[in-house]
Amino acid sequence: MKRIKPQLLKGMQDAGPALALARRRAIATIEETCRSFGFLPYDTPAMEELSALVGREPSKQQLEAIFHFCNRDDVEVGLRYDLTVPLARMFSQNRLDLPTPFKRYQVGPVWRWDKPEPGRFREFLQFDIDTVGSTQMAADAEIITMIAAIMQNLGITGFYIRVSNRKLLNGLGEFSGAEDDKAKAIYRVIDKLDKFSRERIRLELGPGLKDESGDTITGLGLTEEQIAKVDAFLDLPNSGNVEESLGAVENLLGEIPQVLEATKELRELFANLSGFGLADGVVRFDLHLARGLGYYSGPVFETMLANQPEFGAVFAGGRYDGLVERFLGKGQGVAAVGASVGLDRLLAAQQAQGALNTERTCADVLVTMMDKARLADYAAIATELRDSGIRTDLYTGKGNLGKQMKYADRLGIPLAIVAGSDEFDKGELSIKDLELGRKLADEAETREEWKEQKQQFSIKRGDLVQEIEGQLRKMERRFATRISNEKEEEKRGPASFMRNVTKKSF
Amino acid sequence: MKRIKPQLLKGMQDAGPALALARRRAIATIEETCRSFGFLPYDTPAMEELSALVGREPSKQQLEAIFHFCNRDDVEVGLRYDLTVPLARMFSQNRLDLPTPFKRYQVGPVWRWDKPEPGRFREFLQFDIDTVGSTQMAADAEIITMIAAIMQNLGITGFYIRVSNRKLLNGLGEFSGAEDDKAKAIYRVIDKLDKFSRERIRLELGPGLKDESGDTITGLGLTEEQIAKVDAFLDLPNSGNVEESLGAVENLLGEIPQVLEATKELRELFANLSGFGLADGVVRFDLHLARGLGYYSGPVFETMLANQPEFGAVFAGGRYDGLVERFLGKGQGVAAVGASVGLDRLLAAQQAQGALNTERTCADVLVTMMDKARLADYAAIATELRDSGIRTDLYTGKGNLGKQMKYADRLGIPLAIVAGSDEFDKGELSIKDLELGRKLADEAETREEWKEQKQQFSIKRGDLVQEIEGQLRKMERRFATRISNEKEEEKRGPASFMRNVTKKSF
Repeated sequence: MKRIKPQLLKGMQDAGPALALARRRAIATIEETCRSFGFLPYDTPAMEELSALVGREPSKQQLEAIFHFCNRDDVEVGLRYDLTVPLARMFSQNRLDLPTPFKRYQVGPVWRWDKPEPGRFREFLQFDIDTVGSTQMAADAEIITMIAAIMQNLGITGFYIRVSNRKLLNGLGEFSGAEDDKAKAIYRVIDKLDKFSRERIRLELGPGLKDESGDTITGLGLTEEQIAKVDAFLDLPNSGNVEESLGAVENLLGEIPQVLEATKELRELFANLSGFGLADGVVRFDLHLARGLGYYSGPVFETMLANQPEFGAVFAGGRYDGLVERFLGKGQGVAAVGASVGLDRLLAAQQAQGALNTERTCADVLVTMMDKARLADYAAIATELRDSGIRTDLYTGKGNLGKQMKYADRLGIPLAIVAGSDEFDKGELSIKDLELGRKLADEAETREEWKEQKQQFSIKRGDLVQEIEGQLRKMERRFATRISNEKEEEKRGPASFMRNVTKKSF
Repeated sequence: MKRIKPQLLKGMQDAGPALALARRRAIATIEETCRSFGFLPYDTPAMEELSALVGREPSKQQLEAIFHFCNRDDVEVGLRYDLTVPLARMFSQNRLDLPTPFKRYQVGPVWRWDKPEPGRFREFLQFDIDTVGSTQMAADAEIITMIAAIMQNLGITGFYIRVSNRKLLNGLGEFSGAEDDKAKAIYRVIDKLDKFSRERIRLELGPGLKDESGDTITGLGLTEEQIAKVDAFLDLPNSGNVEESLGAVENLLGEIPQVLEATKELRELFANLSGFGLADGVVRFDLHLARGLGYYSGPVFETMLANQPEFGAVFAGGRYDGLVERFLGKGQGVAAVGASVGLDRLLAAQQAQGALNTERTCADVLVTMMDKARLADYAAIATELRDSGIRTDLYTGKGNLGKQMKYADRLGIPLAIVAGSDEFDKGELSIKDLELGRKLADEAETREEWKEQKQQFSIKRGDLVQEIEGQLRKMERRFATRISNEKEEEKRGPASFMRNVTKKSF
C-alpha cells in the first residue's frame, strides 16, 4: 500500500522545544499576573454549536472564517475562533452560579480559516482576560492595568495603550447625517487610518476607488456634506490630551446624546486609570481608534509598541455589553469588558526586544553509556544528579561514544559524563565540557583563555554533584555573555520569529 | 429573533477554576519530571489529514470514533484522537532534523466520538511521553521509570506497573494453530481477562455467547484444541516472578521464535528496570497483560492502583516499532516506545488518595470599595499587597458592602479590607476575617476559642502587608486542619471527581 506523505495541513504548525517552552514560560507569567489580580481560569471546550459561535443569521464571510461541520448527532458544530464568544455562552449558561462581577482568564488554541502567511496560522494560541457583570469604568481600567502589568512582567518595554470609546464613532455616524446602515459602518473605514491616507479614507467613505492592484474598493456612498462632517471630526485635536480632545468633541458633536455618554465614560475611565497608577504616556486617548470588531459597545483599547509599530495592535479589547444577548435575549445584555492577545505575536515582541528568556531548553548533562551491562551505575549517576535539580539525560540509544556526542551536540547539551569499567573500578568519572568544545570548533579566532581550559577531566565519583554544579555555574557566566551578543542580532520583526525559534529548536 | 440556548455540546465540559488549576498543577509537575529526564516538549496541531490519522483503509469503527470533515481546501481533515499518531507524522516529516533517539513529551486535548458517561468526555486532556529511534530495552525501562517518578511526584502511592510483551500473545496465536486473522485477534479477547471469567473468555475464543443483556457476542471461532492451547498458556504460573514465568513459557511455547524474542526482551527489560532502581513490587511481570491497541509490537505496560482498582489502567503504553511505516513505507519502521495518560483520571486518582493539592484558588484578599472617588487609595492598597506576593482582588462591581461580602463568600476569599474616608483620614484600615465568619455561621457547635477571635479589627495603614501576612499564616493552620478532615470524605472513585471539583469551583 502506498505510504502517506507526512505533512502538516496548510496553515498549521508544529512547535519544537524552543517555541513550546517559550510559550509555557509566557503563559506562566501571564497567568500568575492574572491570579495576582484575583482572576481565575475557566476553560471551555474547543467545539461549540455553530449557532452559538455565529448567531442565527451569520454572513457568508463569518461562516467561511470558521472550521465547521455537521457531527454524528446531526448538530452543526464549529471550532471556536476566539475565546470571547465561548465565554458568553458559558456565562449565560452558568450565571446563577458565578460571582458578580465574574473575573476570569483563559488560554487555548483558536482556529480561523485565514489565508496563511509567514507568522500567521490557522491554529493559534490566544490569551483572554475578561470581567463580566460590571458596568463600572473601574472594571475597564482594571483590564487595561492588567495589560500593562502583563507587558511589564514579560519584560516588554516602550509599549503604550491607545484608548477611546466606540460610542464616539457611533455618535459620529449620527452626526454625519448618513442613513443608519452607512452610519454604523463609518467606524470600519476609520479603522483603516493606520494603513491609508486621509484622501483614501475620504474615497472609501464616498464613491469608492480602484486600488494600486486594480481591485475595485466599493465606497460607503456618503455625500460630500456627510464626508465633510467626518473630516471635521478627524481634524479635531488628537495629541493625547484627554481634556483638550474631549472638549473639542463636545463643541463639535455635543448635541448627540451618545457622544456625551462617551465623553462622560472616557473622563471616568481616565480618572480610574490614573487611580490605578498608570502614567499618561502609557495610556493615551486616541480619537481615531476604532477597533474592528462589531460587538464593542463602549471603551476600546489596543496596545502598541512605540519602537516596533510593525507588530500592530497586541493585547487589545474593549467593552461588549451586548454579546450575551444572543443567549439571554434582546435587552438582557450583561455588562462585560475584556482583552485578547495572540501568544506567538507577544513572544515575537518579547524576542524583538531581547526580553525572551533564553534559558537552556535541553538537559544540563548527558550521561553516556559505554557499557550496557553497567546500566545500574549510569542510572544511579542520573538519579543522583536529578535529585539535586540537575536535568539529566541518560543516553538510551544504540550508538557508540561518537554517536552519543553527536546526540549531545544536536540538542546542545553542555556537559557529558563518560565512564567505563576502568573509571568505575577506580571510583572515578570523566566530565566532558561539550560547550567549550563546540566553541573552540566554531571560532576562527580561538581565545587563549579558553584554549587553556580542559575539555575533559577526571573527577571522583563522590564529588559528582558538586563538580557538575560548579561547571554549570561557570557555564552560566559564559552562556550569559553569549546571549547578550546574540540578543543584538535577534532584534527583528514578527515574521522572522517562528523560523528563528524553529531553527533553534535542536 | 429567538435567542440561542446556551449549552455545551454533548460530551463536552467546561472546567471551572478548581479543575482548571488542578490540571495546571499536575501538568507542571509532570512536565518538570519529564524535563529532569531530558525530555522536551514538541507540540503538534489539533488537526491532521484524516488519512494520516487512520491510514488508507480505515474501518468504519475507526472513522466513527473520529471527528472529521472535509475542509474548504477539499482535504479530509480529522481532529487528533491521540498524541501518538501525530507524533509519528511529525517525526516522519522532520526526522533528519531531530536527535536520535528523540525524546519528547506533549500535553493537549484529544477528541473521540465516545458515548459520554460520567467522567468520560469527547474532549479530554492527554499527556504523552515517547522515545523514538531506540531499539534498546533501556528506552522502554526509562519510560516505565518516568511513569513511576511522575506518579510519585504527584503524590500517588500504592501504584504498580504491569509489564509484558505483545510478542508473547502474538506467539500464542501461532502456537494455538489458528488461522492468521484469528490468531492475531486472540490478544483482544485476552485483554478482557480483567473484566470477565475464564469461562466467558473461552466462549469468546470459541463459539461466542449471549451476554446478560441478551446481546449476541460473536466468538473468534477457535476449535476446542486451539482453545485448550490458549488455556494452557493462561494456566502458566503468573505470580509476578519473572524467571519462573518465563521459564514456564519457554517450556510450553519454546518453539515459536517470536516467543523467544519476547522472553529475551523481557529478561533484558527487567534487568534494566532493576538497574533504574525500580523495586520488584512496583514493576510486576504479568503474562496476561494484552493492552488493547493494535500497533504495539514489543513490551507493553500499564499502571494500576492497588487499592483503587476501579480506576483501571492509568498511564499505560508500550513499544510500537511499526507506526511510522504508514509514513515512511513498509519495512521503514522506526523503533519507538511511549506511554499516555488521561489527565483528568490521574487527577481523580490523586484526589481519591487525598494527594490533590487543595491550595486556595481564589485571591487571598478582597479590597472592598466603599467610596468610588477614592479608587486611587484602594488601588494603592491592592498594588502594595500584590507586590508582596499576596493575591488581591479589587472589587470593580457596583454593589454595596453587603454585595461585596457576598462576592467574597461566593469565591471563598478569606480576608477583606474595608476602608472609607474616616479610616483613610485616620491612617487606618479594617480587616475582616471572612473565613472565621463563615465558620461561625456554618457550625452549630461553635467552638469557644474561635468565638473569642475578632471577625473585624482596625490596623494602621502602614502595617498593611505585615498584618495581612500574619492573618494568612494563621489561616493556613486553620485551613490545613479543615483539609485533613475533608480528605477523608473525599476518598471516592473516578466518577465523583468532576462533579466534586466543579461544585467546589466557586
